[in-house]
This record gives sequence, structure tokens and C-alpha cells, in this order.
Amino acid sequence: MQIELLTIGDELLLGFTVDTNAAYLARQLAAIGVEIVHRTTVGDDAEKIAAAVSEAIERTGAVITTGGLGPTADDRTRPVIAKLFGRELVRDDAIVAQIEARFWRMTSAKMPQTNIVQAMVPTGARVLQNNHGTAPGLWIEDAEGRWVAMLPGVPREMRGLTADSIIPILRERIGVAPTAIISRTIRTTGIGESALSERLGELGKSVHGMPLAFLPGWAGVDLRLTSRTLAPDDAVRALDAAERELRDVAGPVVYGDDGDDLAKLVLDSCRDRGHTIAVAESCTGGLLGARLTEFPGSSDVFRGGVIAYDNSVKTKLLGVSDVTLSTRGAVSEEVVREMADGCAKELGTTIGIAITGIAGPGGGTPEKPVGTVWIGISGLGETRALGRQYVGDREEIRLRATQAALDQVRRGIASL
Amino acid sequence: MQIELLTIGDELLLGFTVDTNAAYLARQLAAIGVEIVHRTTVGDDAEKIAAAVSEAIERTGAVITTGGLGPTADDRTRPVIAKLFGRELVRDDAIVAQIEARFWRMTSAKMPQTNIVQAMVPTGARVLQNNHGTAPGLWIEDAEGRWVAMLPGVPREMRGLTADSIIPILRERIGVAPTAIISRTIRTTGIGESALSERLGELGKSVHGMPLAFLPGWAGVDLRLTSRTLAPDDAVRALDAAERELRDVAGPVVYGDDGDDLAKLVLDSCRDRGHTIAVAESCTGGLLGARLTEFPGSSDVFRGGVIAYDNSVKTKLLGVSDVTLSTRGAVSEEVVREMADGCAKELGTTIGIAITGIAGPGGGTPEKPVGTVWIGISGLGETRALGRQYVGDREEIRLRATQAALDQVRRGIASL
Repeated sequence: MQIELLTIGDELLLGFTVDTNAAYLARQLAAIGVEIVHRTTVGDDAEKIAAAVSEAIERTGAVITTGGLGPTADDRTRPVIAKLFGRELVRDDAIVAQIEARFWRMTSAKMPQTNIVQAMVPTGARVLQNNHGTAPGLWIEDAEGRWVAMLPGVPREMRGLTADSIIPILRERIGVAPTAIISRTIRTTGIGESALSERLGELGKSVHGMPLAFLPGWAGVDLRLTSRTLAPDDAVRALDAAERELRDVAGPVVYGDDGDDLAKLVLDSCRDRGHTIAVAESCTGGLLGARLTEFPGSSDVFRGGVIAYDNSVKTKLLGVSDVTLSTRGAVSEEVVREMADGCAKELGTTIGIAITGIAGPGGGTPEKPVGTVWIGISGLGETRALGRQYVGDREEIRLRATQAALDQVRRGIASL
Repeated sequence: MQIELLTIGDELLLGFTVDTNAAYLARQLAAIGVEIVHRTTVGDDAEKIAAAVSEAIERTGAVITTGGLGPTADDRTRPVIAKLFGRELVRDDAIVAQIEARFWRMTSAKMPQTNIVQAMVPTGARVLQNNHGTAPGLWIEDAEGRWVAMLPGVPREMRGLTADSIIPILRERIGVAPTAIISRTIRTTGIGESALSERLGELGKSVHGMPLAFLPGWAGVDLRLTSRTLAPDDAVRALDAAERELRDVAGPVVYGDDGDDLAKLVLDSCRDRGHTIAVAESCTGGLLGARLTEFPGSSDVFRGGVIAYDNSVKTKLLGVSDVTLSTRGAVSEEVVREMADGCAKELGTTIGIAITGIAGPGGGTPEKPVGTVWIGISGLGETRALGRQYVGDREEIRLRATQAALDQVRRGIASL
């Protein structure tokens, strides 16, 4: 089943509000086999709303709208769509009573008269009970089965109505979906989009007939497979097989599935093996520690560390030698090894992770340009150091450095 | 000037990515008097892209697209729009050379052949230099002056191209706009939305006829004024006057303007006064250090610190007494004072900032529930400690704690 989404509101169009409703609805609907194939956003303008709804009815005949059901003058969805379907707006006294009761419960105040418009229902429309706000949703349908479902724009109310009404109604309409859109994401790091595409060859376009999307970010390149043409159970089986093949060909750059955070995976595998972690951070300034402590229970593994931003901290708290610092420079293989060893020793952990680099925009030299990063790992076999050259802005270089450091720990543990 | 925005990508339509580009573009354009009046999102489907572009050209004749300029098979914007305008795609060797150079600079590797497609330019199109990625933007225009500007979907690249090309081109086209939508935001912290609303009284609704919006977040409550009806210069003057009045009434909870980061402001005021900073972080695990090092030049002020996640680190590296830890607990006024003093002493800085708390979801007790945070500031007069009780999830509690710690330094410096 293919539908369209129309999100309505000046706030959205002017960019004061980021449209999170659209992404939420898309994911909820896709899981039951309903695909949003077109999304439109217009402001609080009656003509533009009418034009957008007409076009959507013409194209797909199945439309969900969000927004414009409030009590104020700039809320125009209800009258515009009623008119488009040739219906009168009639006051529904049961809804008036509900809104009055809600006002009393929430504010101990009487319902303002402006809210009466929220109880106006197009003749023949189905009222969708809103358990999280005053404006009910509305479902209006013509003789040919073309429909528009109107939802409020407030995310909490929109989500409630989606779960309570939209999903059940659509499920009933489609039965067991002949096809569902189900996606599977695997996460890679330490390889660029183009190099990964070359490695994957023909698989880079589609795997077992399913399209593959490359989604690059600082954490690496995510690969997303999407099944669009199979029934739900078949889709899952096909995705399983495709994922296995993709993982085989991509190789050890694959570190996890959709939503996996490398810091969390590293914490978990350290916990399983009784490892403990200390960090020594220069250019990242605490970012690696912050990532490792984002997760509840990280204290089982993570002891802490030293933010050795200034060179004096590297010598005093980590035992990096003055000679190494002055002969090799703070951003060097030798210093990062001493930092990694130093933090593990000082904090008494089995693993020490060190990062030193030039995050920019200043501080680069011809030999060590901005983006030069050294990563040191102590404790998994001999102390190892890895040099990297990143592009990007300061924040991206720092995030990439933490990701590469965590990836070295992942690979180090896997190789033991 | 009215234009349309077409954002392209299966990931947007399927809800895997929230469309932040749309809001960003809208705000940038509104400030120069260009209004996005219609926004459409379609997937990576040639027919649907073509249909959406045709409709947009029909409606407004001025269209910006984002997405679909990558090197892979699911990137279809370039050929689809070239075909729609009846243009050939011709390889531009200068762009090939730029992409090759970029690859060499970033990865010391040769450009993969797949990237050649990013150097294909529709005949007669204007190439918009991309300083943040491989795919240049493209501006294509027909004999009647109807145009489509194609931008990459990667936010950093899209933002760079907007600033470097789109804004200058549009500015030249429109000259001075009769009205512009311009907003002004001031940032407050350390006060809740309701308390701030009470303090502002009537100003909380509108200031000099301009509506005021309250935008609460972990950093505090932002206040946004918007002028919609004035010419650009008049709007700026009206906003200046309104902002002055708002700042007066809100008082010392105001710490900055739109986009200001409290960490940056604290670094700047420390630099001006010759202060240096060390941190001692428990529950925030490095997040405060990460925030302080987000900004170029932070090394003038920030020396580093100790991530004292485990209690043994608090005693060994910060000199917190075992007795204090066992009698008062790690999350206590006494321990945070010793942490603040300890990091300043160990690192030889004029200011020490310490945070200890229970970020949750586990670890709370009836006396010290989740959200209990102690903040210690050493060096600005006598060592001070501040207890706070936050609500929110782990990430929010940690972010609020860093913000409150920075705010204490800001107020401490201001009071000297």
C-alpha cells in the first residue's frame, strides 16, 4: 500500500521546527507494509493546503496530514479538506464535552470558546479519539475509497493517534500485507564510501535483487539493504541471506548492526573478557571518555583517564618522557605509545587507549598537517600505534579519531 | 522571492534520516527575504524525482534540491534533472582533477572510477564549487529563467554550498527584499521555562509587537524574537531594541546570543583574564573536557584534567581522601570540593572544575536519587560547591551538569 504524507505548518516551512513527525510515521507505517512514497510540506495557507491535498489525492488517493487542527486562526486543515470533499462542518457535542472535561482536568479552567472549532466534524467523517490532546483526528473518505486522515502536529498527540487509530485502521484494510518494506543496516568503519563500493563490486548496487544504500558519516559508512517486494516473512529470510553475503564480502570493516554504537560494543566485549579500560586523550579532550560513559554500566569496564591536553600533563600524569616530547613532538608514534602505556599503568587497567593529533583548524605543519592523528593501544599484545590522516572540520576529525581508536580495540580483541 | 525545496533520498522518505537540511535552508534563505513556500520529499526513484521537479518548476520555477549527487547507483538527481532540461551530461576534466586531488589529500589513494559520475555536468549548467566534499553543486536554468539548484544531501556539504554559492547568487538576483523574516535568539540557563515566563510577565508574549517563543533544552531556555513584517534594516533595528529590553528584564540568567556555546564564552573570558582551567569529571566521563576543547584555541586556557570515573582514580590522581569518600560518598559536596581543588593543584591551573553525580538509570538511592549532581569550582575566591537535582535521561543529566558547571565559572568570573 502506497500513501502520501502532507505536513502542514509555517513553523516547519520556516525552519523553526525540524519535522520529526515525518520520520516517525514513515517507520511505523513501513513495518506494516505501508509505504510513504511522497511527502509534501506547506505552510498555514488555505490555498496551498487545498492544492497539495488535491494533488496527493490525484496521485495516490491515500493521504495522512499532520498539523493545522489547533484552535487558532492559522489552523486551516479541517475546513479546507472538508470543502475539498464537499462536506459541511457540523459541531459534535460529544467532542465539545470531551474537550471541556480535558480542560477542567488539566488546568481547572473552563474551555475557551476558541476551542469549539476543534469539535467541528465534516459530515460523514470518522472521528479518531485523541487521548493526548484536545483536537481529535479525522478520517474522511469519498465514494471511490480515496481518503485523507488528519492528525494533529504536536508529536505526542500524532504518535498517540498513529498507534491508537491509524495503524489499526490500515492493518484492517490491508490484512497481511502482500509486501512489506523492511530494512537491515550493517555498520562499517575504517573504509571510505568509494573504496567500500569498489570492494563490494556488483553487490554495491543490489544484493539478491534488493537495493543497497551507502550512508557515510563520521562513524563510518552504513550499508542499508531494503526489501520492498516480498511478503514480511520472505523479506526477513531474504535479508538474512543478503546480509550474510554482504558481511562476507565487506570483511572485517563490519562492526555492527543498525543502531549499534562502537563504544557500547567495545565495552561489552571487554566486559565479557574481563578487560578494563583507561584513556589518555590529547586532541579529543575527553570525547572518547564521554563516548565510553554514555552507556549505563560502563563503570564495569571504564576506570577513567587523563585529559592530557597540555604537554605538561602528558609528562606529569602519564609519565611521557620530556625527551620523546621534544625530539618527536606531541603528535607522534612514540608519544602516543607512551601515553597508552602510561594511562594503563597509572589507572591499573588491562587496556590503555591514547589519542594525540592536530584537530585544527590551526596547528598544522607541512610534515604534520591538520587531521594528523596517532592512536595508541596498550595491553592487547604489544603496544601498537596507528597513524591516520583525516579530512573534515575539527569536530569530525575528533569524532573520527575516537571511532578509529575504538575500532583498534575491537580488532585487537578479535585477533587475540 | 518564493522558491521550493525538493529533498531526495529513500532514507528521508523511509524515516531513517530526519530532514535537518530543510530547516537549515529555510532559515538561511528567510534571512535574505527568500521564502520556501513548498517542500517535497521523494525517494531515489528517477520517475518520482522527475515528476516532483516538473511540478515544482511549473508552480514556482525556482527549486533547490538536496541529495542524490553521490557516486553510487542510487544517486539519480544529476541525470534526471539534466534530461528534464534537455541537456547532455558532459565530463568536466577540471572537476575530475579536483576530486582526484581531494582523494589524494584525504586518503593518499587514487580516486575510484565510480566518482567520475560526480564530474558529469549538464551542458550549460553552472558548477558550484564544493569545498567540503567531492560532488559539486549544479545550477541549471532554462531560457525563461526557471532554475533548479542541486546540492548534496550531506549536511556539511549542503551548508557550505549554501553559504558559498546559493546565498550570494540569490542575493544578487533579488537585490534588497521589501520584507524579510529575521529572528533573534538570546540564551538563558539556570532557570526553568515557567520561572522565566513569570519573570518576563507581558514581555513573555510579545516584545514591541514581535512574538516571543520559549525554546527549552538541556543548555537552558532560549528566547526567540521574530520580525516578519519589516524591511531587513528596520527589522534589525526593531530587534535590537526588543533584545535590549528583554535582556534587562531577564537579568543575569542571560549568557549569550543565538549559536553561542557557554563553553566558548567561558574560554574567552578566562583567556581575557589570564585564567587556566583543569577539570575533574566523574559522571560526565570527559564530556566537559570535550565541550571545552571543541573550539580552536582552547589550549590557551584548558590544560586538561582527570576523568575520575572509578573512585581509585579520585584518590590516586586527584588526592581525594579515602575517608571523605567512605564517609560522604563519591557524590557529595565534600568530594566535589576535593576534586576541584585536586585537579587545579595537580595541573597547576587557576581554576578547577569538578563534577560528580548519578546519571542513571541505575545507581540512585532514596537520599541520592538519579539526577543528583554536585559541582565544584576551585580558584575563583573560595572553593564553592553547588548541588543540583536534574530530571531527564542519562545524556540529558550529563549535559545539564556540564552546562551548570560552566555557568558557575561564568558567574564566578563576572562577580570578581
